[in-house]
Amino acid sequence: MDKQTYETGLKIRSEVLGKEYVENSMKSADDFNKPFQEFVTEYCWGAGWGRPGLSRKERSMLNLAMISILNRPHELKLHIRGALTNGLTKDQIREIFMQVAIYAGVPAGVDAFRQAREVFAELAKK
Amino acid sequence: MDKQTYETGLKIRSEVLGKEYVENSMKSADDFNKPFQEFVTEYCWGAGWGRPGLSRKERSMLNLAMISILNRPHELKLHIRGALTNGLTKDQIREIFMQVAIYAGVPAGVDAFRQAREVFAELAKK
Amino acid sequence: MDKQTYETGLKIRSEVLGKEYVENSMKSADDFNKPFQEFVTEYCWGAGWGRPGLSRKERSMLNLAMISILNRPHELKLHIRGALTNGLTKDQIREIFMQVAIYAGVPAGVDAFRQAREVFAELAKK
Amino acid sequence: MDKQTYETGLKIRSEVLGKEYVENSMKSADDFNKPFQEFVTEYCWGAGWGRPGLSRKERSMLNLAMISILNRPHELKLHIRGALTNGLTKDQIREIFMQVAIYAGVPAGVDAFRQAREVFAELAKK
Amino acid sequence: MDKQTYETGLKIRSEVLGKEYVENSMKSADDFNKPFQEFVTEYCWGAGWGRPGLSRKERSMLNLAMISILNRPHELKLHIRGALTNGLTKDQIREIFMQVAIYAGVPAGVDAFRQAREVFAELAKK
Amino acid sequence: MDKQTYETGLKIRSEVLGKEYVENSMKSADDFNKPFQEFVTEYCWGAGWGRPGLSRKERSMLNLAMISILNRPHELKLHIRGALTNGLTKDQIREIFMQVAIYAGVPAGVDAFRQAREVFAELAKK
Repeated sequence: MDKQTYETGLKIRSEVLGKEYVENSMKSADDFNKPFQEFVTEYCWGAGWGRPGLSRKERSMLNLAMISILNRPHELKLHIRGALTNGLTKDQIREIFMQVAIYAGVPAGVDAFRQAREVFAELAKK
Repeated sequence: MDKQTYETGLKIRSEVLGKEYVENSMKSADDFNKPFQEFVTEYCWGAGWGRPGLSRKERSMLNLAMISILNRPHELKLHIRGALTNGLTKDQIREIFMQVAIYAGVPAGVDAFRQAREVFAELAKK
Repeated sequence: MDKQTYETGLKIRSEVLGKEYVENSMKSADDFNKPFQEFVTEYCWGAGWGRPGLSRKERSMLNLAMISILNRPHELKLHIRGALTNGLTKDQIREIFMQVAIYAGVPAGVDAFRQAREVFAELAKK
Repeated sequence: MDKQTYETGLKIRSEVLGKEYVENSMKSADDFNKPFQEFVTEYCWGAGWGRPGLSRKERSMLNLAMISILNRPHELKLHIRGALTNGLTKDQIREIFMQVAIYAGVPAGVDAFRQAREVFAELAKK
Repeated sequence: MDKQTYETGLKIRSEVLGKEYVENSMKSADDFNKPFQEFVTEYCWGAGWGRPGLSRKERSMLNLAMISILNRPHELKLHIRGALTNGLTKDQIREIFMQVAIYAGVPAGVDAFRQAREVFAELAKK
Repeated sequence: MDKQTYETGLKIRSEVLGKEYVENSMKSADDFNKPFQEFVTEYCWGAGWGRPGLSRKERSMLNLAMISILNRPHELKLHIRGALTNGLTKDQIREIFMQVAIYAGVPAGVDAFRQAREVFAELAKK
């Protein structure tokens, strides 16, 4: 492990997905998934998100489109919250999901819109 | 927007998925997803389903196979109901999903059969 | 192996994909892929296509949509020929691929149209 | 149907997924899905799993990787249990899912780890 | 068809993919694929790309990520050229494909990098 | 970058895919794809393949199944060679691809068998 890349990853992951969420993920990790948590933090968040060249806002845009197509609703909802944190507006999120519908098909778009509305409803309750 | 294509789409969508469902979708639409609802109605249901060349029954057959493979259970259940409305029998639906299992793999088939049985159970309750 | 199902499969496969193609597949099979050739003939073509409940034309329709989405151009081209053999018209094939574009995205449709045009061009040369 | 292949399939399926589970699947089958249950038992479990050349442990390894990528959580959970029955350790399951994350992307890995932890928690309750 | 949306689509498509490419597509269209060409021009390029809310550069970013994952090399190469036209730098394209590798798996990234290098080599020849 | 993980990765990658292939990849890398080559070497081959818990033979088995399903023929052919290097027999490769056909559908199996036969034919020529 590259300690510095890991620390960078932990910081970015906490800033994008929320400190509480990341601390819970780390605290609840057991022998089974701890190596994976550490790998994701270093590889995805440190060595990936930590690179220059794209802004966090741009990385969030890509993630919303990619995770919609990859059909992973649990992760998509996390990254919709992260996208708002990174400064995307609801109007931009709508445009991204309409482009998903055109390039990956209407059902992918329908699911993405439903999940976004669930996230917005949860946030409105707070 | 092409008003006539939109109207055709709204009519077909209501006839296939049910008037109540479509009215609810439209009524509950907000600033965020209204442009998408309108786009889907015009593009998918008007410019797509509104074309001649395939019967509604044939379009439903294609959709059951496609949406099973695309792995979108929420949409699949809607279109299983739509397929019954469009005149497909349970026996034909079984044959479609068996062909899905062969061409897209057994797990895709297993999920499609489970979702169909849930739809049939819901309809039997009424 | 169920001999009768295998024989049924061999017959249907030859009628749909062409006797020459199937004989070549079988003749060129070696120790490595012969068990797979037999498996596909028995289960996909015998136990699958051999079932009642859908016409060959309907099974071809499903296959064109499914194999486009599964993104397997080599198989798609074979089944476009098979679809013509089974009585689908070019107009029906167009409608199927337009529905693919709507439900699985524009790039899936673009590829399907290109492959169909290649098949039609090859057939026109003969 | 090849009776012997079917019987082999029924035996292997029961040993891997559990006698109770398979008996319930068979007993609850109705006119709609019975032909599919029989097909899966013969084709997937008899003609597939019944082949020599790979151990059950190896087939379970493949299935965990494949079903994670195919994104079928219901089936994945069944096969995580089956993998434990077939002798895979939790450490091996972790390694498989880390390899899934690298080759099929982090969100596929995240979902696989979550589902495995749910299965382990259910088993710990008993 | 909404004539104005179609004209907008034709203009944007030509500006992004190149006038020559689009004119050839349209001229070579026959009875089989002409309705599809018009459909894509109106809905994908007019009703989709023609919307405000995202810049062309941002839409290109999304497309590079999406089409890599959708695994459509022919379309990907077209849109890599389009992305350069829309102002993305090679460095930004690299960052997008590295993020694809993390979220959709290393093989998706490897293919995207190979296709981009092919496009760059073709452009360098001119 | 963790230098030690990178070196481990470079060694494993060379042993599995061939020293010549890896040296060519590294030598031909330019500003555009060098960061990706290094990233893949460190994370996929060092931090991934370098982990204990699965043998190289087992990791090759997983890769053949996964890359077939991910539909990346170029990578699949590389990993079929790697699998032979890691000690898998042709009979085991056949069994893996038959299981792919069952779980991911017949067309995925057909493509995998065709690509394996191309690799075997290339190797036989030497």
